[in-house]
Amino acid sequence: MINNKNINFISTEFLNKREIKSILESANEIFHSKNYSHSLIKNCKDKLIFNLFFEPSTRTRTTFEIAASNLKAKVVNFNIENSSQSKGESLIDTIANLSAMRADCFIIRHKMSGAANLIANYAPNNIGIINAGDGSHAHPTQALVDAFTVSKKFKNLNKLKLAIVGDILHSRVARSQIDTFKKMGIRDIRLIGPETILPTEFEKFGVSIHRSLDNGIKDVNVIICLRIQNERMSSMLLPSKKEYFALYGLTQNRIKICSNDVIVMHPGPINRGVEIDTAVADSTSSMILSQVSFGVAVRMAIINKVLNG
Amino acid sequence: MINNKNINFISTEFLNKREIKSILESANEIFHSKNYSHSLIKNCKDKLIFNLFFEPSTRTRTTFEIAASNLKAKVVNFNIENSSQSKGESLIDTIANLSAMRADCFIIRHKMSGAANLIANYAPNNIGIINAGDGSHAHPTQALVDAFTVSKKFKNLNKLKLAIVGDILHSRVARSQIDTFKKMGIRDIRLIGPETILPTEFEKFGVSIHRSLDNGIKDVNVIICLRIQNERMSSMLLPSKKEYFALYGLTQNRIKICSNDVIVMHPGPINRGVEIDTAVADSTSSMILSQVSFGVAVRMAIINKVLNG
Amino acid sequence: MINNKNINFISTEFLNKREIKSILESANEIFHSKNYSHSLIKNCKDKLIFNLFFEPSTRTRTTFEIAASNLKAKVVNFNIENSSQSKGESLIDTIANLSAMRADCFIIRHKMSGAANLIANYAPNNIGIINAGDGSHAHPTQALVDAFTVSKKFKNLNKLKLAIVGDILHSRVARSQIDTFKKMGIRDIRLIGPETILPTEFEKFGVSIHRSLDNGIKDVNVIICLRIQNERMSSMLLPSKKEYFALYGLTQNRIKICSNDVIVMHPGPINRGVEIDTAVADSTSSMILSQVSFGVAVRMAIINKVLNG
Repeated sequence: MINNKNINFISTEFLNKREIKSILESANEIFHSKNYSHSLIKNCKDKLIFNLFFEPSTRTRTTFEIAASNLKAKVVNFNIENSSQSKGESLIDTIANLSAMRADCFIIRHKMSGAANLIANYAPNNIGIINAGDGSHAHPTQALVDAFTVSKKFKNLNKLKLAIVGDILHSRVARSQIDTFKKMGIRDIRLIGPETILPTEFEKFGVSIHRSLDNGIKDVNVIICLRIQNERMSSMLLPSKKEYFALYGLTQNRIKICSNDVIVMHPGPINRGVEIDTAVADSTSSMILSQVSFGVAVRMAIINKVLNG
Repeated sequence: MINNKNINFISTEFLNKREIKSILESANEIFHSKNYSHSLIKNCKDKLIFNLFFEPSTRTRTTFEIAASNLKAKVVNFNIENSSQSKGESLIDTIANLSAMRADCFIIRHKMSGAANLIANYAPNNIGIINAGDGSHAHPTQALVDAFTVSKKFKNLNKLKLAIVGDILHSRVARSQIDTFKKMGIRDIRLIGPETILPTEFEKFGVSIHRSLDNGIKDVNVIICLRIQNERMSSMLLPSKKEYFALYGLTQNRIKICSNDVIVMHPGPINRGVEIDTAVADSTSSMILSQVSFGVAVRMAIINKVLNG
Repeated sequence: MINNKNINFISTEFLNKREIKSILESANEIFHSKNYSHSLIKNCKDKLIFNLFFEPSTRTRTTFEIAASNLKAKVVNFNIENSSQSKGESLIDTIANLSAMRADCFIIRHKMSGAANLIANYAPNNIGIINAGDGSHAHPTQALVDAFTVSKKFKNLNKLKLAIVGDILHSRVARSQIDTFKKMGIRDIRLIGPETILPTEFEKFGVSIHRSLDNGIKDVNVIICLRIQNERMSSMLLPSKKEYFALYGLTQNRIKICSNDVIVMHPGPINRGVEIDTAVADSTSSMILSQVSFGVAVRMAIINKVLNG
């Protein structure tokens, strides 16, 4: 967890296997407790947490707000549009000012890769920084949520076959997932997509690359679909939605190619009829809404870790 | 209160006389208590309530936020603009995701008639849905606030004469009021307005229709003015503001036509000089601000009912 | 503190020396306490405070929210855009409605000079009004924060030399500062700037006027830089940013003209390279971030005063 100076949560790369396991165990206790442990709340109560979302978000922003509120921390939802950012104040100056208000933790979502790290370099040592997604760099709390989801369903991860389908190139989630799943012992990780959004260089991460969905998902236990953003179509990186769905859309027929126990995951928001068919999204194999539920518990564990080490 | 599956509060049509009376009694106790009862707070404390306002609102949104906060519930003010709705996520998918965060209650304001009912059909059974106004369909909590206001002032409702003036056709409030007042035993309910915004079909609700304000408000004990929206002028359903005020604006002179004990109500925001004269709005017969005060107590009673049955 | 009818905090002009001293002493106790005193929280707990910011703000809005939250008050961040103000409701009617919700305190930032006073004249007597900046009229809580900052650093204020540099004409902060510093016994107050933004009439406040920065800051112990707003350039009141910086920008070289113990203050947000050089803003003489830290404690003291007298 130690990232240069602060107790931070910038990228999964700063976590080792033992630390990941410890957070997931803590999240599991939290998930199954009714009113959360007394000691957990005692350690987080009245801490000052800023929710700094410079990009729209439903799941991440709201689960963080609920997580912090469950821990009885004070949450300030910093509203960018009504702030001095609209008067041209720089991000670093805004952060310096919020730090001076005796902040204990910043949760940051920003479109710029490296934003969370930049902030961590400028914020005082006693403030914990949580990266809630920065550009196409990393989304470590989502990766931990997904690791939690996989570990709730499967005990023996060494033999698991896992596929990530879609826009790997622009995905902050995929980068963090690959790193986390590998540390957890998953050896057969497959990336699936056309070359425009999945360059061959990704092989260096110790994963296999597949251009055909049907080949790639053969016998897999876990499929993670990634969101296809509209701008990928307009920038000509991808054909039309219809063509993408024909080639890479996850349908009930394609689910039959997978292992019988396959689970389907997606970080959300889903594009029904683009990367995933409605029947699959709403099927019993879908863990998409469970991921959201787990998100609150996992983020409580992460906030507690960042605040209390 | 049982609407198909959930404990909901979608429309007054699902409430019978006994249930309405019980909520008003509960609201009355709350209104006169200093710190609200211990048992009330015990039953609502830490429940997770989402304030989902897809339309602007001052009174309803804020009184709900205060009501929930008085009950020590956790309130998340879901900010539509900063959410994944801005990325094109559907309402149903947003609701499914928020439900997965272990929500206990959704409070919804939406421009689409039927939105609250739609959400109630999709949300899990254990989540209570409160309709805070959907299109021109219903605004049941406002109707309860208004019923509370009338019952604070008058004991014998059977002999009461009550008039509703203005844009009945597009008003979600009027529909809910008529239903509620009739169940409470008010027999003389008069709707007043020009045919473009008050079609004769409304007679089927067991009310009388008046085209002349002066005739309609003769001897009434209660006048409820409805807001005239600017778009009614531009869509030619109504003449200019000035002409509307001349024909249907409530003035001190017209108040003299009413019973001596008349009270004037309005769900707000008021248009001074359009449906109501400033002198009347600010007179001692005006209950407009009392309605707002009562709104907090009535909504506390409703939230408690929805959360605890 | 008594302003006509309410216990308000509209302008420092309503405060005498003893009252200013009492607030600063209370703020000092709060600043050095770990969890704030039991009695303080007991007196403010569950009070209903509205944060009404009609203009963007980072420091003031957020420190008020944190201050109120530290006192365990209920804070409603009234979102102007999503309110009935967007339907054309007047400020006075909005205030009347919020008052009816049993508000205890309004904290108001508005672009119109006199807005806080207007609201104080209309709001019920039992509601405290805090002016968080109105037009170019007053910003009394910032002036108290700045007085606190000066008094933390210097014990003997009678001999202090203090300079305020920049756009005095349009600054609500400068007006409140001059009044407060004079009451605290600072006799040598110097205003520095070109005539377009610092008319000679300001001499009537018992201060000296300087057109040359180098002359004005000779031997001063305190320099307060004011923000230069972009519209001053475009409206031709000032030359370009570059020229302004050459004439009035505070640089390390100019700091040498001041007393050895000089401190540099700024109400924020700062314009690096316009009114202040980055090296000065980030130097050890800079108290800019300390002002923000002190802001929370001073505003807690002010809220407590307004709520409890």
